[in-house]
Amino acid sequence: MTTQDTVKPSAVRTAAEVATWDFEADVVVAGLGCAGACAAIEAAEAGADVLVLERASGGGGTSAMSGGLIYMGGGTPVQKACGFDDTPEEMFKFLMAACGPEPDEAKIRIFCDESVSHFHWLEEHGVPFKYTHYPEPFMEPPTDDCLVYSGGEDAYPFDRIAKPVPRGHKPQAPGAAGGFLMQRLVAATEATPARILCDARCETLVVDGRGRVVGTVIKHDGTHKAVRARRGVVLTAGGFIMNRDMVARHTPLLWKASYKLGQDGDDGRAIRMAMGAGADVIRMDAGEVAIPIIPPRRLMRGIFVNQFGQRFVNEDSYPGHVAQECLFHQDGKMFLIVDTAIYERNLAGMEATHVEETVADLERSLGFPTGVLQHTVEFYNQGAARGEDPVFHKQPGFLTPLNNPPYAAIDCCTDKVLWAVFTLGGLHTLPSGEVLDPDGQVIPGLYAAGRTTSGVAAYGYVSGVSLGDGTFFGRKAGRQAATSAFTA
Amino acid sequence: MTTQDTVKPSAVRTAAEVATWDFEADVVVAGLGCAGACAAIEAAEAGADVLVLERASGGGGTSAMSGGLIYMGGGTPVQKACGFDDTPEEMFKFLMAACGPEPDEAKIRIFCDESVSHFHWLEEHGVPFKYTHYPEPFMEPPTDDCLVYSGGEDAYPFDRIAKPVPRGHKPQAPGAAGGFLMQRLVAATEATPARILCDARCETLVVDGRGRVVGTVIKHDGTHKAVRARRGVVLTAGGFIMNRDMVARHTPLLWKASYKLGQDGDDGRAIRMAMGAGADVIRMDAGEVAIPIIPPRRLMRGIFVNQFGQRFVNEDSYPGHVAQECLFHQDGKMFLIVDTAIYERNLAGMEATHVEETVADLERSLGFPTGVLQHTVEFYNQGAARGEDPVFHKQPGFLTPLNNPPYAAIDCCTDKVLWAVFTLGGLHTLPSGEVLDPDGQVIPGLYAAGRTTSGVAAYGYVSGVSLGDGTFFGRKAGRQAATSAFTA
Repeated sequence: MTTQDTVKPSAVRTAAEVATWDFEADVVVAGLGCAGACAAIEAAEAGADVLVLERASGGGGTSAMSGGLIYMGGGTPVQKACGFDDTPEEMFKFLMAACGPEPDEAKIRIFCDESVSHFHWLEEHGVPFKYTHYPEPFMEPPTDDCLVYSGGEDAYPFDRIAKPVPRGHKPQAPGAAGGFLMQRLVAATEATPARILCDARCETLVVDGRGRVVGTVIKHDGTHKAVRARRGVVLTAGGFIMNRDMVARHTPLLWKASYKLGQDGDDGRAIRMAMGAGADVIRMDAGEVAIPIIPPRRLMRGIFVNQFGQRFVNEDSYPGHVAQECLFHQDGKMFLIVDTAIYERNLAGMEATHVEETVADLERSLGFPTGVLQHTVEFYNQGAARGEDPVFHKQPGFLTPLNNPPYAAIDCCTDKVLWAVFTLGGLHTLPSGEVLDPDGQVIPGLYAAGRTTSGVAAYGYVSGVSLGDGTFFGRKAGRQAATSAFTA
Repeated sequence: MTTQDTVKPSAVRTAAEVATWDFEADVVVAGLGCAGACAAIEAAEAGADVLVLERASGGGGTSAMSGGLIYMGGGTPVQKACGFDDTPEEMFKFLMAACGPEPDEAKIRIFCDESVSHFHWLEEHGVPFKYTHYPEPFMEPPTDDCLVYSGGEDAYPFDRIAKPVPRGHKPQAPGAAGGFLMQRLVAATEATPARILCDARCETLVVDGRGRVVGTVIKHDGTHKAVRARRGVVLTAGGFIMNRDMVARHTPLLWKASYKLGQDGDDGRAIRMAMGAGADVIRMDAGEVAIPIIPPRRLMRGIFVNQFGQRFVNEDSYPGHVAQECLFHQDGKMFLIVDTAIYERNLAGMEATHVEETVADLERSLGFPTGVLQHTVEFYNQGAARGEDPVFHKQPGFLTPLNNPPYAAIDCCTDKVLWAVFTLGGLHTLPSGEVLDPDGQVIPGLYAAGRTTSGVAAYGYVSGVSLGDGTFFGRKAGRQAATSAFTA
């Protein structure tokens, strides 16, 4: 067990123990990913003296590893330019349905109501968007186009709950734009008076005699140093997917996935630091799950079957939804079944693992009992020929009978392909970024945003919501900390 | 929101705030269910002065509402008399497989290793068992017979993991024996010098300046009174299924179930009291789920289908497993499909909700898309005719083709029949009953057992394990508290 593999909170230091403050600032931000950058910018622009502490040798964090999609809507200029008519209410209805059960209604409400204004803020801070729509959904466009469907808004059942429109906004850079986004956000941070200290790992919080968070102890240049935060500490240091013990304790099924989507820093340290100061954690069992089966989405003319050879989901759903269904409800086992008219190597280079001239042979080759897959395909084909999927409601555009031999299966089980997962649970915060204790009381001087917190996605997930709520609530937290009435 | 509907910990009192102790004892036990009775007996027999506080007007708690099954094995006298050859190792293998993922291995190990000795202890303390086996599994026998299969030990996949033997032991009383068990355990408690104070509701814990739990404040006779615990407080006051807010926070799907199996006291108060003293909670998302579809088990010659008309489980499984699969993985929707040869009213009086002359008509009547259920039945029948269930591995004894019209469905969805649920998560304890804080450190003076804790069943469940680990670890906690070196 390495030191970060622990479920233990980090015991706080008391201010009385701190002999000298090595650094001081009004607002100390821990972690320079998207949430930290936005917190620092807002705090600095509110007039606070800001110090950003980044554990790595440069900013970016796990945000920089992402595709760059930011979930925004309610009528952004990009949506309007592309002819999509959206409202905060439609966005709210969708997110409430897609992010449950029991999503944080207050967070979702403000996230939707102020989404257009957030778009403008990002533009004003150097994040450019091309006002174009890219038709292939669910992933960042390979081009520098912007707007994509990123959450299955156009798939059953969400297409019946809210008007389907795309809300994934990618900054204007070709392909995965997380790195580009973070370059821009770090540059915007650097354009403020905020100072950035790299190779500075927060170890624990410092609290005063009344329980107020007044600083943090960091490891920097090989030694421990004390950092005073006159107005507050903002924790924006990622989730806990790299911490085996925390995953085993809180969301054991996630560990089955082959790829933990994070950096070393996603070891839950910020969460455990805050717990040491009395913070509450919620939704620790929730996880995002991604599989690279698409693009292209046209592969979804095939069918997913579970370990019993049954379909279990509409294949045109958001792939993260398919993957959550599979990992949490189908024991992480599924296969994509296609015929030769549909089959192609997908963008991730996944290839057929089983190819046979008949479905009966494919069924045998997969080790399914005789007749199961044959029936699944036959029944699916009957509906597809009529343009109907009466059971799972896949859209007609993806309904093509599978009847062009040879037939193939792509083994998508957790032990066969790359499943990328990260944690969604974390600190319980108000929309303002204030961190709550289990009594629901604000812990003075402590703020958090991003995957260190439980955010817009309580359990269900849509692409773009992590950068979306990280940037949005990072701003809220930075502003709240900077304007805190109290000065330590 | 009533006062108990809160997720908040109960803030502790400090010993300095207590002017007078209204009651004093070495060991104070909060809650007189099965865990509390066993804790009190062990503590008293270890020489401690014991005071039991019961919130209701008499002992029994939720244990008295139960069927009375106690999960024991490894070669109990009843198992031997009935010709079943069991070992602690087989019991261990079964429970590790059935109670996961990530069950508490240390607890399961000692629970199995000392199970035979625990059986003798219960007998010695006035709980009689008839040395007989009752063939209908999964529920307390209607007779005064003892031994039943209570966890699906004989069903796939467990029959391939550990040698199937029955381990559900019912005390010798006809029918549901939870009340009888508690009469005997309360009598055994009363036979010790332990004092019992009823109508005494614990409100909060009292801690001394070093964080040691030294007592509790109770509501009794309309006023608050302070109770000093010289050696320790043992919390055995049930789970949190009656607390809507805690369920919504930690395990929202459980709230769908129509029947919360508990008493008013199962409002999580003991858990929140301990949290106030710094205790950690784990597995708060876990829940037991029961449906009264059997007995008789022969009804399981029918098939369960989900909302898509598909089978999803071997019907001969432990019904709690079927119900967990349905609630957590199938959105709480399932239907039992039978023919006229199988159909009968079950013990709970459930009747067919849909009856038709053909499966096609039944399918239509259920609102399933044309062909889905017809195929499910046809495919099942083909295998059943060969004595095989190649997909779900139901035992041959339950495989009978469904081909005797009329056909019937029993709607078993959460909104149609009685689903009985309770919570499995709670305080993180050692096998000794000592309560841990999030750092894994023992909180001095604090002990717990029963559904106030996360016990043998981490997520998966088998009948008898609640009374099983409640009585077993209740004893451990009482003994540990009584022999604590420290005296407050």
